[in-house]
Amino acid sequence: MTSYQRIVLASRPQGAVSPSDFRLETLPVPDISEGELLVRNHYLSLDPYMRMRMADAKSYAAPQPLDEVMIGGTVGEVIASRHPQFAVGDQVVGMLGWTELAVSDGQLLKKVNTTQIPLSAYLGVVGMPGMTAWYGLNQIIKPQAGQTIAVSAAAGAVGSVVGQLAKLQGCRVIGIAGGKKKCDYVVQELGFDACVDYKGGDLFADVKAAAPDGIDGLFENVGGAVMDAALARMNPFGRVALCGMIAGYDGQMMPVHYLHMALAMRLTIQGFIIAEHMALWPQGLSELGQLVATGKLRYRETIADGLAAAPEAFIGLLRGRNVGKQLVKLV
Amino acid sequence: MTSYQRIVLASRPQGAVSPSDFRLETLPVPDISEGELLVRNHYLSLDPYMRMRMADAKSYAAPQPLDEVMIGGTVGEVIASRHPQFAVGDQVVGMLGWTELAVSDGQLLKKVNTTQIPLSAYLGVVGMPGMTAWYGLNQIIKPQAGQTIAVSAAAGAVGSVVGQLAKLQGCRVIGIAGGKKKCDYVVQELGFDACVDYKGGDLFADVKAAAPDGIDGLFENVGGAVMDAALARMNPFGRVALCGMIAGYDGQMMPVHYLHMALAMRLTIQGFIIAEHMALWPQGLSELGQLVATGKLRYRETIADGLAAAPEAFIGLLRGRNVGKQLVKLV
Repeated sequence: MTSYQRIVLASRPQGAVSPSDFRLETLPVPDISEGELLVRNHYLSLDPYMRMRMADAKSYAAPQPLDEVMIGGTVGEVIASRHPQFAVGDQVVGMLGWTELAVSDGQLLKKVNTTQIPLSAYLGVVGMPGMTAWYGLNQIIKPQAGQTIAVSAAAGAVGSVVGQLAKLQGCRVIGIAGGKKKCDYVVQELGFDACVDYKGGDLFADVKAAAPDGIDGLFENVGGAVMDAALARMNPFGRVALCGMIAGYDGQMMPVHYLHMALAMRLTIQGFIIAEHMALWPQGLSELGQLVATGKLRYRETIADGLAAAPEAFIGLLRGRNVGKQLVKLV
Repeated sequence: MTSYQRIVLASRPQGAVSPSDFRLETLPVPDISEGELLVRNHYLSLDPYMRMRMADAKSYAAPQPLDEVMIGGTVGEVIASRHPQFAVGDQVVGMLGWTELAVSDGQLLKKVNTTQIPLSAYLGVVGMPGMTAWYGLNQIIKPQAGQTIAVSAAAGAVGSVVGQLAKLQGCRVIGIAGGKKKCDYVVQELGFDACVDYKGGDLFADVKAAAPDGIDGLFENVGGAVMDAALARMNPFGRVALCGMIAGYDGQMMPVHYLHMALAMRLTIQGFIIAEHMALWPQGLSELGQLVATGKLRYRETIADGLAAAPEAFIGLLRGRNVGKQLVKLV
């Protein structure tokens, strides 16, 4: 192996993301200096937040620079090390980006144990998406047994964990997802009480029917009409964890018409970014890991093959084509 | 005095409130039983929340019943009493509604002292509107010195108190109000740092210019485009006290286009109703009363004369014709 491939941001999307916004590059395998190590990535995580980074807009993080390797979570294996704390063969999770190989000084890498949990799960159910679900549900929504919790993008990497965690806490859980296949998965495999297909039927009426006692907690990943349909059914003092608004990530205006429910029902709506709550990661990942290891928390992965497939897989993610965690397998 | 007048809700408004939605009635002065007292109201409070009660929609309170006296805060004087705790001549604040006279069992009446504070102020700056401002600012926004606080309907009974309290806490305060007259009042008399006239100029650009360092706390009374212009300028971890959305009270859809800022800036948006926080009223009213008595908190009243003028005054309030607290003088 003398060369490797990576993908850089070639241009900022105007509207929908296009494959031409990315550029695949081939580079020689780099040398490492004292204190560095070389990682071969096995899986690349694709996540909705990347779409926001591609734009040059006021947000919580700096934009992804043009002509630099696309940001992204990765799991892989150390293949060379001049770092005292890492050895060849160590499996590591990090943010090395859309690249087959990366040099690291080890600071943002974490060694993981794959005896009970597969390596790829550290990008999903026991990684950032799992923590996002755990934090938003437990720290913002704070559900109580018997309450009704709604989650949009219910079949996705985050939503699927939100609903299962809420079920384990004795809640009634309704998902909102796009298409019968996802809804069947959410109800039959993940154990949600109901799932509303926002692509079929009457969204508002279907949410009302699925939540006859109203909604006490909403974990929102989508925004727009999907959020409105849930807001319209919120109960007094309900709580909304605002995690994503993927429906508007291409820059289109996506008005919310039911924000007056926040007044009428005295709701609390809180936006959050899981990277700002690192202190809770050990606790959350420990709980999630135990639930996965004991079979109480299920997950699916949608896996694209090879780095060159990443752009199309990412576009598919934004369009809701994946079920569960969207990954790219690099090795 | 053998008869008195009251106003009842005659019909639920379809769209804008019309004078014909109310009906003025003349009734004989009632007798009181043991344990009751008779109050002659001196001032009636008009408040935006009344518009929501007139509709038959899902909200925090039951709708105002048709053909019953319109809900509303009042201050007045006891003119007859068979109640051990009230004597003729006592001045009382209560929720006796749009009526010149009312029988009460005393349970929801509170005696007030007018040696330092005029009776009418108990409906405004040291009453429900003042408490609304105090609670939303101190319990939800929780401002720190040096932060920028924005408040819409800045010249109103609530907004004018919000801004002055924030100034006393060392904040930069920008108001949003309708028209030059209100903006001049807010800046020149109340000491706000800036005021944006949403009826003139470019709302978004003007808010940006008035809040060059962004907005840390927003006290929202209006909704719609006014709220959007403030949301667009929110700083990370900003807090929004959602007190009213008067722009949509006639039932028109009033979409919010900048809710994605709640995600990008990790905002907390909290709707509240001051009547649900009675435990804090003694503390809040004591603070507000001291500020009024020492001249540190200023207020204005817009006073309509006579009960029959109440419907037009209320319609004027909804259209933003008042400055400060809108009252109806009954005696």
